[in-house]
Amino acid sequence: MNKPQWIWSYGDFELYQHIKMSLQREARGGFELPCWKLYPPYPVAVLGKDVEVEKDEEVFATVDGVGQWRIDGCRYGLERPVTLTKGHHFVEIIVGNQHGVPAVFIEGETVISDTTWRSYDMGCNYQMPTGSFEMYDKNLKPSDYELPCTPIKAESIQEIDTGIIVDFGKETFIKFVLEGFNVGTELKICYGESIEESNDYDHAPIRETITVDIDNMIRPARACRYVRIDGEISGTVSALYEYLPLTMRGKFTCDDELINKIYDVSEYTLRLNSRMFLQDGIKRDRWVWSGDAYQSYFADYYSYFDFPLVERTMIALRGGDPIFKHINTIVDYSFYWIIAFKNHYLYTGDLRVIKNNYDNIISLMQFCISRANEDGLIEGLFGDWVFIDWADMEKDGALCAMQMLYCKALEATAYFGELLGDASATKYADLAKDVKGKIYSYYWNKEKGAFVTTYKDGKPSQQIRRHANLFAIIFDFADEETIKSIVTNVIENDDVPQITTPYFKYYELEALCMVGNTKEVMKRLRSYWGGMLDLGATTFWEEYDPTLSGAEHYAMYGQPYDKSLCHAWGASPIYILGRYCLGVYPTSPAYKTFEVKPDTFGLNNISGSVPTPDGDIAIEIEDGIANVLTTLSGGTFIKPNGERCRVQPNVVNRFEM
Amino acid sequence: MNKPQWIWSYGDFELYQHIKMSLQREARGGFELPCWKLYPPYPVAVLGKDVEVEKDEEVFATVDGVGQWRIDGCRYGLERPVTLTKGHHFVEIIVGNQHGVPAVFIEGETVISDTTWRSYDMGCNYQMPTGSFEMYDKNLKPSDYELPCTPIKAESIQEIDTGIIVDFGKETFIKFVLEGFNVGTELKICYGESIEESNDYDHAPIRETITVDIDNMIRPARACRYVRIDGEISGTVSALYEYLPLTMRGKFTCDDELINKIYDVSEYTLRLNSRMFLQDGIKRDRWVWSGDAYQSYFADYYSYFDFPLVERTMIALRGGDPIFKHINTIVDYSFYWIIAFKNHYLYTGDLRVIKNNYDNIISLMQFCISRANEDGLIEGLFGDWVFIDWADMEKDGALCAMQMLYCKALEATAYFGELLGDASATKYADLAKDVKGKIYSYYWNKEKGAFVTTYKDGKPSQQIRRHANLFAIIFDFADEETIKSIVTNVIENDDVPQITTPYFKYYELEALCMVGNTKEVMKRLRSYWGGMLDLGATTFWEEYDPTLSGAEHYAMYGQPYDKSLCHAWGASPIYILGRYCLGVYPTSPAYKTFEVKPDTFGLNNISGSVPTPDGDIAIEIEDGIANVLTTLSGGTFIKPNGERCRVQPNVVNRFEM
Repeated sequence: MNKPQWIWSYGDFELYQHIKMSLQREARGGFELPCWKLYPPYPVAVLGKDVEVEKDEEVFATVDGVGQWRIDGCRYGLERPVTLTKGHHFVEIIVGNQHGVPAVFIEGETVISDTTWRSYDMGCNYQMPTGSFEMYDKNLKPSDYELPCTPIKAESIQEIDTGIIVDFGKETFIKFVLEGFNVGTELKICYGESIEESNDYDHAPIRETITVDIDNMIRPARACRYVRIDGEISGTVSALYEYLPLTMRGKFTCDDELINKIYDVSEYTLRLNSRMFLQDGIKRDRWVWSGDAYQSYFADYYSYFDFPLVERTMIALRGGDPIFKHINTIVDYSFYWIIAFKNHYLYTGDLRVIKNNYDNIISLMQFCISRANEDGLIEGLFGDWVFIDWADMEKDGALCAMQMLYCKALEATAYFGELLGDASATKYADLAKDVKGKIYSYYWNKEKGAFVTTYKDGKPSQQIRRHANLFAIIFDFADEETIKSIVTNVIENDDVPQITTPYFKYYELEALCMVGNTKEVMKRLRSYWGGMLDLGATTFWEEYDPTLSGAEHYAMYGQPYDKSLCHAWGASPIYILGRYCLGVYPTSPAYKTFEVKPDTFGLNNISGSVPTPDGDIAIEIEDGIANVLTTLSGGTFIKPNGERCRVQPNVVNRFEM
Repeated sequence: MNKPQWIWSYGDFELYQHIKMSLQREARGGFELPCWKLYPPYPVAVLGKDVEVEKDEEVFATVDGVGQWRIDGCRYGLERPVTLTKGHHFVEIIVGNQHGVPAVFIEGETVISDTTWRSYDMGCNYQMPTGSFEMYDKNLKPSDYELPCTPIKAESIQEIDTGIIVDFGKETFIKFVLEGFNVGTELKICYGESIEESNDYDHAPIRETITVDIDNMIRPARACRYVRIDGEISGTVSALYEYLPLTMRGKFTCDDELINKIYDVSEYTLRLNSRMFLQDGIKRDRWVWSGDAYQSYFADYYSYFDFPLVERTMIALRGGDPIFKHINTIVDYSFYWIIAFKNHYLYTGDLRVIKNNYDNIISLMQFCISRANEDGLIEGLFGDWVFIDWADMEKDGALCAMQMLYCKALEATAYFGELLGDASATKYADLAKDVKGKIYSYYWNKEKGAFVTTYKDGKPSQQIRRHANLFAIIFDFADEETIKSIVTNVIENDDVPQITTPYFKYYELEALCMVGNTKEVMKRLRSYWGGMLDLGATTFWEEYDPTLSGAEHYAMYGQPYDKSLCHAWGASPIYILGRYCLGVYPTSPAYKTFEVKPDTFGLNNISGSVPTPDGDIAIEIEDGIANVLTTLSGGTFIKPNGERCRVQPNVVNRFEM
């Protein structure tokens, strides 16, 4: 028997929680607010369902807000249960909430609120499903929802002249609790990801001065490893760890302890950033950025495989209509948002997500198309942020990398239209073809054997950078010969400036894997991620520059401690090791077919597992022998020599490498 | 020296207050919710201003929500004042509020928050002004704003077996207060516009059962004349009258006491419905309906001339984008909304209102145009409510009355474009011409000498109703000959069904005035409005049918007491008497030129005054002599014989009628 749960109009909970999250970013005593539009839920929702009851049944509704029944067109108040007589009824409930999520909880013997209800769009047809978050307690209203907490122990509490320094031993995310402090005591509380940060109240972004006013003060959830309190310590301190419940389904171990540690710390980094949404970083922004999230989705598919988390993040990023600006104001980030749905469908097979977001995909795609220049290419217009990467590269005109994303977004949109039987979407495929043609004709420089950066004033630039050339490999714009040329003329050419950001290092690692240069990947894992561990990192950082020393590492954006030391994009080794070392990936939606094409990265013994919607795919490699075990049929093992072998379900498949 | 006041992004306060109001409609223990979209303000606003300070100046900000300074591009928290050094600065403040109106209050020596600030639309140009409501108290935040209250005495409190009945002597709007009642006492409170309603708890729409939980309980503001309480009366009751401060500037008295009373009761009816917005009725809906409001604006121009009230109402009605449905879901109501701006500009000369709402006008006009049928005419599509009037008339196909409204809305839109120098708006004038041509060619029935009701399946219907024919006169679609034909064949033709709703009676009275049949107008004022007064009405009703008796008068919509006994459209005599009896009206925006063309309606002595933006226009008529006094130049007096005479400012102008 199903239990009733809180339901709402699809997306409302996410929009509401996203605003809540977006308005909590602190910085040295102020609030940093986003410079893009946040879209609140509409304050009235209509949820309805056709029901057939076999005998008279009393149904009672609890709402988050104010509400009213409309049963077979007649309106009733909510103060009493309504009786549905034996037979068919069209049951609707209208709920209004100015300050939260209009949501309902319906209890009857057979008629209960669940996701079989539909959301009504105010006088038109039923169009949208309802949303839910598996909230089964009618007394906990969706508007008041907060993630769960559990007590966490400090590793040490050090007394200093002016107070105490609490050390949790590693990066964490907590509600700090002050108990039994004398009311009236003034306390300066300074949070730090590093000890230096928690000791520098004036420069630390997250800090506050409070006056104790009750016996048990619970402070807002914040990131830290250290908390320093200056003031009279007349009570005790403790902390509550706030978290999203997650089950780690991905596994990776090998005979190299450094790589194992990199994998584990990547997982912990991702875990801290996996909350209501996939955040960029746990300390400073705590926002959702589409380009960052795009990378985190892949890490999620190879770890928790929590696809509601990905769905919530995508809903939050898009917001609503009308569209004023690109997602996060960044042109490329709009394209990532669209492309991500195709990846999501490939990994999860969840057509519902495509369907529920299709209108929003189309309107964003149209917004992008409407901003194309005379050549039909995308360049930044007034107010647009053309990002691609923090790099010394041309940003004017129509960037090659941008057209590649544009083309992939168009292709994805056409694909969704095909999946949903929308014939009008073929125009996106045509447009994609047109853009693809221009990518070759406008940007490929034969002499240099590489794609140039931009096309401006009717001609291509001469600049070669790694970005477009890596994208050409990753996003399938290069045939074998082109790839060879790119490897020689760009990737292995030291005259082309190196990628410096961990954000784009993700794409670089992926491209290196795709061209089979996994030794270089291993080298970089050791030096970059291993380099952070050498410095005592307990989570991976927003950026790491081995030439810096001491507290220099913590500076960013012109502030001494504004670098995030727990940044989601630092977790990309989870994806790289699962996708390319274990070599497991779907070739049709939801792993109905999949391939296992391992590459030892030079390691001897590897053991791991990749989650899918229908079970895990486990693989062990030892001394040139690979054992693959899964309950899934549809698998193909690909040996290093290219030989393809069927993976039998429910038996140990043994392959010589 | 100006005082700082709360400011916000234009429209945010109105959107917020409108949702608040729309979600408070009660009905027998439940909440009635609107079936159209309500648009919340966006949760983040950016307000900015270029300032020049002559010496260093400390500036302090209070926000409704959370916020941050951005001064010359640098961000600062709000915990301390910021110092603006001598010279020029670009001062911005970003404010976020998930649960209310993002608003700011800025105090400096010269830099203060006022309506010279601009509202920033998130990464684009400054486009919009800020909004304000003359709120000068920084401790009273806009999100918490409620209209003022003042104690009001009951006329009588009658003890009955089960409790008491409080009678306020007339319709009013109050917060009922219970003081000193024993905690735990259960009370049934029933509000009634009539004594019958307050005595019938089960059927009265506004009633509640409460348990006293504190010593001083203030109930929500509600309409009533009577309040009945059943339960142990262990304390005292009192009431607070909630009101919008208004100054009555219109005046009308004559030698007929019934007409004077009709004017006064109209004014009181309008006053009770003039609140944050111009409501339809004070008891039941307490909503804003565009067609109702359209009529109330005219009453406002001839009474309080409170044009911020009109502006707030128009902002609330329109909401935001995207547009899903017509305003209030009613096709005609979208057109009234657009046309009303032209009237508003004519009466007030306030171009700012046109400018601030121009984008919303254009998008609504485009929404309407996009829904025209193959003939380029407007008919109801799925989900549209084609209203025009509650009347036995054809509603299918493209109604003649609807095309008249469509044409006027197009003309108004073209006019606004001209005012604002938007050349692209000439297309609306072209479209209006096209529609106007079709009104004649499709709907005028030569044989019947009247406009037919509808055009359907390629041909006009044969039905004649008053509606389109009255509109032809009012909205200027009829030349003199056509008017004569309409008067004979429709207005004075008893075979054409009579108008039965007070809503459309307004248009009928206006048409009768325009064709000079003011004796008939007087007859109807006496019978319809006088009829309600004879029954003891203290405010005018939603509908009045002289054939009913007793409590039958209070029934509507299938419920015994759902009729509103204080309905804004009942106040139309204010407009009719000011506009046509005193005969004062603007002929160019803001009464820069105006005409005074009185018609005694058969009365002997008349004295009155009409407000304008720059002072009043007073007129007295006694025994065929009219005296006109005003400070305004630009006036022309028109005698009954058509002779035109100049009205001199600041002297008594004496005209023989």
